[in-house]
Amino acid sequence: MIYLDNAATTRPDADAFARAAKEAAENYYNPSANYGGGFAVRAKINVARESLLKRVADPAKFELIFTGSGTEADDQAIFGGARRGNAVASAGEHAAVERSFSELKNRGVEPRFAPVRADGSVDPDALLQLVDERTTLVSVVHVNNETGAVNDIAALAKAVKEKNPRCLFHSDGVQAFGKVPIRLTPAIDLYSVSAHKIGGLKGTGALIKRKGLALPPLIHGGGQENGSRSGTENVLGILDFAYAAEKKFATLEADGARLRGYRERIMSFLGERAGGGIRRISPSAGSPYILTVSAVGTRGEVLARMLFDRGVCVGTGSACSSKHRFSRVLTACGYPQAVLDGVLRISFSPQTTEQEADAAALAIYETVKAFQEKV
Amino acid sequence: MIYLDNAATTRPDADAFARAAKEAAENYYNPSANYGGGFAVRAKINVARESLLKRVADPAKFELIFTGSGTEADDQAIFGGARRGNAVASAGEHAAVERSFSELKNRGVEPRFAPVRADGSVDPDALLQLVDERTTLVSVVHVNNETGAVNDIAALAKAVKEKNPRCLFHSDGVQAFGKVPIRLTPAIDLYSVSAHKIGGLKGTGALIKRKGLALPPLIHGGGQENGSRSGTENVLGILDFAYAAEKKFATLEADGARLRGYRERIMSFLGERAGGGIRRISPSAGSPYILTVSAVGTRGEVLARMLFDRGVCVGTGSACSSKHRFSRVLTACGYPQAVLDGVLRISFSPQTTEQEADAAALAIYETVKAFQEKV
Repeated sequence: MIYLDNAATTRPDADAFARAAKEAAENYYNPSANYGGGFAVRAKINVARESLLKRVADPAKFELIFTGSGTEADDQAIFGGARRGNAVASAGEHAAVERSFSELKNRGVEPRFAPVRADGSVDPDALLQLVDERTTLVSVVHVNNETGAVNDIAALAKAVKEKNPRCLFHSDGVQAFGKVPIRLTPAIDLYSVSAHKIGGLKGTGALIKRKGLALPPLIHGGGQENGSRSGTENVLGILDFAYAAEKKFATLEADGARLRGYRERIMSFLGERAGGGIRRISPSAGSPYILTVSAVGTRGEVLARMLFDRGVCVGTGSACSSKHRFSRVLTACGYPQAVLDGVLRISFSPQTTEQEADAAALAIYETVKAFQEKV
Repeated sequence: MIYLDNAATTRPDADAFARAAKEAAENYYNPSANYGGGFAVRAKINVARESLLKRVADPAKFELIFTGSGTEADDQAIFGGARRGNAVASAGEHAAVERSFSELKNRGVEPRFAPVRADGSVDPDALLQLVDERTTLVSVVHVNNETGAVNDIAALAKAVKEKNPRCLFHSDGVQAFGKVPIRLTPAIDLYSVSAHKIGGLKGTGALIKRKGLALPPLIHGGGQENGSRSGTENVLGILDFAYAAEKKFATLEADGARLRGYRERIMSFLGERAGGGIRRISPSAGSPYILTVSAVGTRGEVLARMLFDRGVCVGTGSACSSKHRFSRVLTACGYPQAVLDGVLRISFSPQTTEQEADAAALAIYETVKAFQEKV
């Protein structure tokens, strides 16, 4: 299987898993237990915490709360950060942010969505216009999960704070962490990440939070995670996340350059063979991990199934919103129906090889052709 | 290590883990993906769901929502079920329920706590007196995690519904599931369970819900778990939970009888050697998995550390509330300070052997004696 749906989830890294599984099996105690075994596993969790945090932030200025998913991290940031007034997001957010923003209405907070450009990135001026003295939270995705467009969250956070210094700034960094270089700046209050997008396990995420910011918990109980997230810690998932990230960050720049090459290689091939029939949606300045195209007038989900049966796995947009025919985000980008229907998202991992990229490009081209000839 | 803190967490079952790890590694796709690989992993999750559900409930009448912990399941039941009026719990609840009830105050719902008896079980008459026409939710723990006392939740749910048919009934079944026989009755609306208390992994729980009951999600996003709990599913934890439960339920009755024997054997030994110096707190009719005692006038947490260094691992009460000197629940049971200080919780798993039970009893007795001689 040539697996190119890594933006949906990645194959767990076998080395990181073996290492974490061994340690978690040995350290099976409850991290809250008040004896040697409990202290040891608590210490291991804190080493993992520090290791993950320092990849993108200064541990003197930020802290990290482990959660059960990137979605949970987003929810905690949004429901904890937007408690009155209004909250502003981009129209290019993942469902984890967009659905939570919609829920804010039921809690007396007005959600506002700023328009996106054709590549899925937010229009900064339009976003800033929505921010006023009653805005309590702004949330802008770092890397758009459907197009790969990168928002300059440091600049956006700074501009938001200049307009309203009390407003919190959150970013969903799930598609960025371990893939796109970032250091969190003081204007960024909250940043969500997820393990299973970088070779970790499904079921572990984290919310990175500026130190000193009091954020209410989403899950109340035994007071784990310093009171910020109750429930017995997912020790295996947490250790595995740290080990997977360790590998991922070690080669972040080199992987990015290589995958950017594959992305352009696939696009050139498809462009040459299919001409305007396969249209590029991802911007060249976007994440090297995502190439979204549209085989105009076809059906992306049918293509994806045909490709899967042929041994090539690609996505059709956000797996999380796959119940709707048209992508909400790509609709907001302004594409017509024929383009929206034919969307394929090809997303890479550091394990992707040039041979796989070439084989996938050919398979995609041939599958599009087969689809068109049938119709 | 003689591990007798299984009420805090269990050693993950190695067979269940190997089986789940292999399947999860092969089925690494995102369960929301709309192609063969996604369908296959979704089907596996649903087999696990059905397998777990049928252990304690009729799948025609109940459904199961996977969560990231028993705590999250409790929180979803409470915050989703108690949206106005008042809510009633016992004074013997785990922190996951008690802290969430306290949070209800901030959301305009009045929390009420019914007194418990000396063994930690709720006083049914006192509980019913707190239920009125404005009560929206009653929550009573099935097996008390600090004493092992079993509440007759079927009878309590029935009595609550007779008084107020619109009131929801929830029970935290985390210490009961796989250990104490139970079939959910129609009057029980919600039941929380956790994987890591029965040989599964930390980071997976579930909320069992009566079909037809509309319960709002705690976590909003991509709409996983039929819209009830968003976030990419913890595939490994879910499969492992089902396999661990399969083993656990196969021998539930026989394990219970055997462990009840060990429990009484340890208590007899301690009673004979230490006389009234080691006092029994757990009721004989309680869960066979928990024996809580107090070495009156000693310090349980010091004993637990001494025992750990000697290779015997026991708890001091709820690991989740280990930040407070005295147990809130045992205080509510009415014990004086000298008893509260000396509490030890000895909790079993099906892997516990008679030799381990005997060795632990001797080690506990000698450690208590050593403590007393030092003081």
